[in-house]
Amino acid sequence: MSFRIEKDTMGEVKVPADKLWGAQTERSRNNFKIGPVASMPLEIVYGFAYLKKAAAFTNCELGVLPIEKRDLIAAVCDEILDGKHDDQFPLVIWQTGSGTQSNMNVNEVIANRAQQLAGKVIGEGDKVIQPNDDVNKSQSSNDTFPTGMHIAAYKKIVEVTIPGVKQLRDTLQKKSEAFKNVVKIGRTHLMDATPLTLGQELSGYVAQLNHGLNALENTLPHLSELALGGTAVGTGLNTPKGYSKRVAEYIAQFTKLPFVTAPNKFEALAAHDALVETHGALKQLAVSLNKIANDIRLMASGPRSGIGEIIIPANEPGSSIMPGKVNPTQCEALTMVCAQVMGNDVAVSVGGLQGHYELNVFKPVMAANVLQSAQLIGDACVSFEENCAVGIEPNHDVIKKLLNNSLMLVTALNTKIGYYKAAEIANTAHKNGTTLKEEAINLGYVSAEDYDEWVKPEDMVGSLK
Amino acid sequence: MSFRIEKDTMGEVKVPADKLWGAQTERSRNNFKIGPVASMPLEIVYGFAYLKKAAAFTNCELGVLPIEKRDLIAAVCDEILDGKHDDQFPLVIWQTGSGTQSNMNVNEVIANRAQQLAGKVIGEGDKVIQPNDDVNKSQSSNDTFPTGMHIAAYKKIVEVTIPGVKQLRDTLQKKSEAFKNVVKIGRTHLMDATPLTLGQELSGYVAQLNHGLNALENTLPHLSELALGGTAVGTGLNTPKGYSKRVAEYIAQFTKLPFVTAPNKFEALAAHDALVETHGALKQLAVSLNKIANDIRLMASGPRSGIGEIIIPANEPGSSIMPGKVNPTQCEALTMVCAQVMGNDVAVSVGGLQGHYELNVFKPVMAANVLQSAQLIGDACVSFEENCAVGIEPNHDVIKKLLNNSLMLVTALNTKIGYYKAAEIANTAHKNGTTLKEEAINLGYVSAEDYDEWVKPEDMVGSLK
Amino acid sequence: MSFRIEKDTMGEVKVPADKLWGAQTERSRNNFKIGPVASMPLEIVYGFAYLKKAAAFTNCELGVLPIEKRDLIAAVCDEILDGKHDDQFPLVIWQTGSGTQSNMNVNEVIANRAQQLAGKVIGEGDKVIQPNDDVNKSQSSNDTFPTGMHIAAYKKIVEVTIPGVKQLRDTLQKKSEAFKNVVKIGRTHLMDATPLTLGQELSGYVAQLNHGLNALENTLPHLSELALGGTAVGTGLNTPKGYSKRVAEYIAQFTKLPFVTAPNKFEALAAHDALVETHGALKQLAVSLNKIANDIRLMASGPRSGIGEIIIPANEPGSSIMPGKVNPTQCEALTMVCAQVMGNDVAVSVGGLQGHYELNVFKPVMAANVLQSAQLIGDACVSFEENCAVGIEPNHDVIKKLLNNSLMLVTALNTKIGYYKAAEIANTAHKNGTTLKEEAINLGYVSAEDYDEWVKPEDMVGSLK
Amino acid sequence: MSFRIEKDTMGEVKVPADKLWGAQTERSRNNFKIGPVASMPLEIVYGFAYLKKAAAFTNCELGVLPIEKRDLIAAVCDEILDGKHDDQFPLVIWQTGSGTQSNMNVNEVIANRAQQLAGKVIGEGDKVIQPNDDVNKSQSSNDTFPTGMHIAAYKKIVEVTIPGVKQLRDTLQKKSEAFKNVVKIGRTHLMDATPLTLGQELSGYVAQLNHGLNALENTLPHLSELALGGTAVGTGLNTPKGYSKRVAEYIAQFTKLPFVTAPNKFEALAAHDALVETHGALKQLAVSLNKIANDIRLMASGPRSGIGEIIIPANEPGSSIMPGKVNPTQCEALTMVCAQVMGNDVAVSVGGLQGHYELNVFKPVMAANVLQSAQLIGDACVSFEENCAVGIEPNHDVIKKLLNNSLMLVTALNTKIGYYKAAEIANTAHKNGTTLKEEAINLGYVSAEDYDEWVKPEDMVGSLK
Repeated sequence: MSFRIEKDTMGEVKVPADKLWGAQTERSRNNFKIGPVASMPLEIVYGFAYLKKAAAFTNCELGVLPIEKRDLIAAVCDEILDGKHDDQFPLVIWQTGSGTQSNMNVNEVIANRAQQLAGKVIGEGDKVIQPNDDVNKSQSSNDTFPTGMHIAAYKKIVEVTIPGVKQLRDTLQKKSEAFKNVVKIGRTHLMDATPLTLGQELSGYVAQLNHGLNALENTLPHLSELALGGTAVGTGLNTPKGYSKRVAEYIAQFTKLPFVTAPNKFEALAAHDALVETHGALKQLAVSLNKIANDIRLMASGPRSGIGEIIIPANEPGSSIMPGKVNPTQCEALTMVCAQVMGNDVAVSVGGLQGHYELNVFKPVMAANVLQSAQLIGDACVSFEENCAVGIEPNHDVIKKLLNNSLMLVTALNTKIGYYKAAEIANTAHKNGTTLKEEAINLGYVSAEDYDEWVKPEDMVGSLK
Repeated sequence: MSFRIEKDTMGEVKVPADKLWGAQTERSRNNFKIGPVASMPLEIVYGFAYLKKAAAFTNCELGVLPIEKRDLIAAVCDEILDGKHDDQFPLVIWQTGSGTQSNMNVNEVIANRAQQLAGKVIGEGDKVIQPNDDVNKSQSSNDTFPTGMHIAAYKKIVEVTIPGVKQLRDTLQKKSEAFKNVVKIGRTHLMDATPLTLGQELSGYVAQLNHGLNALENTLPHLSELALGGTAVGTGLNTPKGYSKRVAEYIAQFTKLPFVTAPNKFEALAAHDALVETHGALKQLAVSLNKIANDIRLMASGPRSGIGEIIIPANEPGSSIMPGKVNPTQCEALTMVCAQVMGNDVAVSVGGLQGHYELNVFKPVMAANVLQSAQLIGDACVSFEENCAVGIEPNHDVIKKLLNNSLMLVTALNTKIGYYKAAEIANTAHKNGTTLKEEAINLGYVSAEDYDEWVKPEDMVGSLK
Repeated sequence: MSFRIEKDTMGEVKVPADKLWGAQTERSRNNFKIGPVASMPLEIVYGFAYLKKAAAFTNCELGVLPIEKRDLIAAVCDEILDGKHDDQFPLVIWQTGSGTQSNMNVNEVIANRAQQLAGKVIGEGDKVIQPNDDVNKSQSSNDTFPTGMHIAAYKKIVEVTIPGVKQLRDTLQKKSEAFKNVVKIGRTHLMDATPLTLGQELSGYVAQLNHGLNALENTLPHLSELALGGTAVGTGLNTPKGYSKRVAEYIAQFTKLPFVTAPNKFEALAAHDALVETHGALKQLAVSLNKIANDIRLMASGPRSGIGEIIIPANEPGSSIMPGKVNPTQCEALTMVCAQVMGNDVAVSVGGLQGHYELNVFKPVMAANVLQSAQLIGDACVSFEENCAVGIEPNHDVIKKLLNNSLMLVTALNTKIGYYKAAEIANTAHKNGTTLKEEAINLGYVSAEDYDEWVKPEDMVGSLK
Repeated sequence: MSFRIEKDTMGEVKVPADKLWGAQTERSRNNFKIGPVASMPLEIVYGFAYLKKAAAFTNCELGVLPIEKRDLIAAVCDEILDGKHDDQFPLVIWQTGSGTQSNMNVNEVIANRAQQLAGKVIGEGDKVIQPNDDVNKSQSSNDTFPTGMHIAAYKKIVEVTIPGVKQLRDTLQKKSEAFKNVVKIGRTHLMDATPLTLGQELSGYVAQLNHGLNALENTLPHLSELALGGTAVGTGLNTPKGYSKRVAEYIAQFTKLPFVTAPNKFEALAAHDALVETHGALKQLAVSLNKIANDIRLMASGPRSGIGEIIIPANEPGSSIMPGKVNPTQCEALTMVCAQVMGNDVAVSVGGLQGHYELNVFKPVMAANVLQSAQLIGDACVSFEENCAVGIEPNHDVIKKLLNNSLMLVTALNTKIGYYKAAEIANTAHKNGTTLKEEAINLGYVSAEDYDEWVKPEDMVGSLK
């Protein structure tokens, strides 16, 4: 492999000749060999591309950067956003906790690529664009990294998470309406209970997801606050007047998302409660989705020796040893995602609670976990919707049989003969293996006519009063 | 001890003669000897008292309960809310997951106490009030327990948590203003950084708590939704027409809190995402408070061999062996609370994700953890405010000395001579143990006059642009 | 209320006249009003009583404490261990993180009670025993609190947790043997699978608990290491020669448990990884117990519209609205305990990871969570064993019906006709709602005789080869 | 792209012509588009390669597989282990929870590659090796996936985690010895305390890591138990006599690791407490490492306005805006890893507690988290050791200054003049800003000669008695 020499304030470093990065990126590669290479999410790199471009425009507008430099920087940022330099960001999550090295990675790639765009050769002659003095002008890692991670997280949530959850929610809503008259047995404590409709059951899931979406959306205003303009410690040292407000406006313009400058930059650097807050809502969604997926696989269990009230799509052979087996695999993928999100919530919180003074140095791990959870929930909801939820159908024969077996239909008698006599009927039928009606009559508490009049499952699910 | 005989649908049970509870409470006491007795939070019992009274009023209004019964039930509920029967609720959290036994405990106590209020003797003659048919009329454990826990949690949050956090927030805000001109060294990565004011530093904490309060308040609408009216599985079986809306109105009236009937009762019984959501915000506050308390003890460390930039009140002797030692004990109590809340969040979530079909049966553990976290955060904020935050004072001598020592003042030169020369000055001063000014002049990059003009800490903290 | 004046190095404090505690306890009561009073576990107070007595004996033996003082101190410790002074320890968990105030609470109570035992009046004349110079001799809070919490945790685990888990394990083992010939359908992915016996199923639970017990026992050696002798920072300052080894021997003698002096006192004060380690094993048990309890309630679900393969005891009426309902309440209590233990594990770990320099100041919260988890697991296992596991019985009719229905018996044909033809048989039977045998013959893959010979559920569970 | 047709029991599927996988892999790719492609860890694929080879040898030895097939299968397994087919395993973690699809991926790749090795063309003529009947012979996903994940986790821990932790432990041990005479101030509650040596301080870290290594090693026996031989539900259906013991011996032989067949196969399929147990120990290590790294950065804080007692290597420029700044970046990477491991522990536990009946279907998420944590801890320890720990040096001037300043040296006077007079000296010196000696003499408690004789920091750190 051939190399060129790059320099930083600590001296010279050999860098692979075909790479655009510089000395500090190379130092980080060598000093942090932890886990797979390039684990720093590309979404954060793209967040940086937006903000570097916005900073260049703002600096130019405020008179501290020539227009030629602005345009060179912006041109490279656009290339990065087009995915043309994805292989130029080799760093890992497990680097400095401020993400300085990824900030410098972006600065260096922009500077070197600008050299090329300016028709020059990297490493020859003066740098057309300086990584620190030009690309990083009016910035610090301490305000750029949190800005980049907010951009990345916000985009992921509105582009992947929310649409994914909504897609599933909409399908469950449609199913809920379709099955609104399918009366089935209810179950509480996993035990037979009074009836409800399959549509009502699904409506509970829809309500859960609506609450989850609402909770997630509630967190977006905090996430829309950008640290940029705080520079090193939040005071905005070395930024021109008007910078922080203007740079947020440019970012909002470039991303088409409602970003604003953080009202308090000290909080925005020293704490990442916005990520904790957003991930809390993702975790809530995971809790909901776990319940939903678990219910569905319980209802679909069987096909012959389980509950079997619903039928879900058979998408693949389920077993390498048991021929013909079909499994609720989408439920399993989704609940595994939920387990991961539960764990990620703790990782984010443990990172969040350990900031010191003016800087929280758990930025990369917090951002990476939020991005992973947001992606996984969105993807898993889509996968679950397309490959499972959309195909849910009632197994009417089973539903009817299980409904009519149930001793809990006796509850309808409470308001007629009181709880205690009703209990006696149910207990006797249970002990004798008989039907409620038989024992209601035997015990002399209800006539056959009254029983038929009073105990109608379809009347027991009636619209909430 | 003397006993009386109580009965339920399973038969007779001996109950201590001096107790108001009945057969089902006694069964639960015997069947669930897990952890300390009476661990079920009294706040939930009080929540039940509100709802039992509201149910009695609604049932009466809707024509299914005589006014005499209503008034007897209401009278006992008022006694319970006055704390007159606190020793009548001996059950534990670790009972049935629906809280049925605590619901019955309340039903039984109300019925037996009503017997006394009606001038009769418990266990003699017919019951004036039946626990199931009267007290529990139009109800199920499955909708009462979640209603009781929402009432308890909502009250705790608005009466304890929010006022406690605000009390601390207000004091930090005042301190922030008082110290707005105290220029001190900033620290990032725990290392010397550019200056800011002590007031700015504290303003970040205020911003964290404001965001936390906002996040917590965002969760209250979900928490204000009451399950009552859903009865056994969410369908509202055995409730009179109009019941669920009306009963929520009564609860709102009695508690003076904005409770409403849950739009979807299936969600309200089968999932407790509202508790997950609320606890998520409590956890976010714990994350913030941990950071704040940790910073304060770092800044107060010393008194001679630590950072020592601030002085906090000395409230007690700090050591049983080291004479004269004073410790940041309020910070320790607060951060221990934060650790507990972090754990409770997982307990709540693990309970939340495991519901089955029409009922989540982790209600007591979820509610108990939310109540504990809400209480601890509120109390700990008050304790921290009264015994620590209110007394925070800057140690001006130390602050000045540490500020002027700092090599990071060099950052002010970036915009004058560029990042790279500035770095050379700082590195040389660090190596030689000299001052920035000496080396700036030695290296020939800055004149003495320019240095004094350009490097002024008080100019480096200037209002955000 | 009447008061007396107590003093410490900070001055005078009014203390309720009828209480044995002194100035520092009273300060703590006033300064830490967080959560319920007296939340500091009594088990830790008892741990202190053991160690104070052991210290007195060691100090005496090593010539730094007169025998009269030793005997007075020991006499009060014995009274404390007899439970005679339980109401003298009013402090909360949420105090200083070193537990200094609880150490002083014990020191003060011992000193004042010794005054009484010596026939004098508290607060009059010189103190016969000084809290700091005598009771706390050769000690610091920093080594006593961790010693007290190790004693408390170790005792709780060997006296409550392990016996409780073993009681459940033994019953499951007996049930496993009793049901070793009950062939039933297996279920994987919640779907019908090949058969096994109910005894085999339960044997898996036994294996889980045995692994859990082994894991828990593996943590005991670390927990048996006592910090006592390290004093303030681990160096053993102000202890007589030979002290730390000897005092651990006395503690071992008094508790009859194999305690030893920690080989490294710096670790023993600054980190509480021993608690993290022990709680990790408790959490593993919670994971196992959750699975076991969940399976049992699934198998017991019904009675008519669920799985219903086993019958569990009906201990109480299950519903306040549905007459005759019986629920798996012991499973619910146990799984709620598991959720709490899951959360406590995070609380313990978050406390453990935040020590600073020579002292971890999350001692009380860590200890309280370990003690709670240890108690709850032990109690819940006993409750579950006595009220549920011991009464588990197979529902033979249901088991037989569900077994014979299963299409997964086809797996037995794999080795005869290959996976692919076997799958065809199963798929066809599933589609047509017919039996495997019918389709095996229809498809011409197996003769009726061969089918009967090859597909015998009882041959499919055969002892592992 | 060109395709070929592959078949399974559900029908035909188009597969990219240049890929070795078959129908079921392709179905999984299409049905589970969740997160990045190929997220299933390659280590698990390699675990499968070991076990497929071992199964082939065992099947051959026991007479159910021809030697030619055995050798073809083994040859492909060896190629996989040589890394020649890494791009043939495109599946994600978020698939079926049994890992069936990854088992089939391996089966299909082996069968198709065997076709090539046999000189034939994939998709033409009969398959030389059948994925289900030959490669998967005597196996099920349900026993192969847990076997593969145990192999992968065990290897990772003994090859990466333990050596990494030991490398750091050894260096800390050497530093502890090198600095055994460097007397410095101790700190408890972050406040000045009595002295100890830097060597003693580091010895506490060594003790933590030794305990952590011991805890991790305690978990290996459980992890060494292999499920293979249990097949579908643990009964060993369709395995030849003697299979499970023999196949574990082959795996032990091929991996050179002490694997054994699990004594209870039901536990080994239905629960993955072994992973919970192992990850518990990884989490304990994370707790320890977080404390260690945090202490080191606190001690290295500065360079001028922090503690500054030690100097750590400067590996890279620390700031993009503050010239000359050096940060404790290795501490940050390590503590971020600890936060991730804390979270992963919850993910593993949440997966572990949700098994149903004969199968836990959270296998992939549990395994992936264990592997990630094991890798990150090992790598981060090595990185921290090489780039930070090895270069730790005391800053003697600072250490001396901070030591001599300390008021806590007064503790040495406790045994001479009592705690209360000693406290008075310290409090007076603190108030007056004077030295202990001055006030000791002023107050008349100690003569100058006695003071010098009694208060010697170097005598206060003496070997533990």
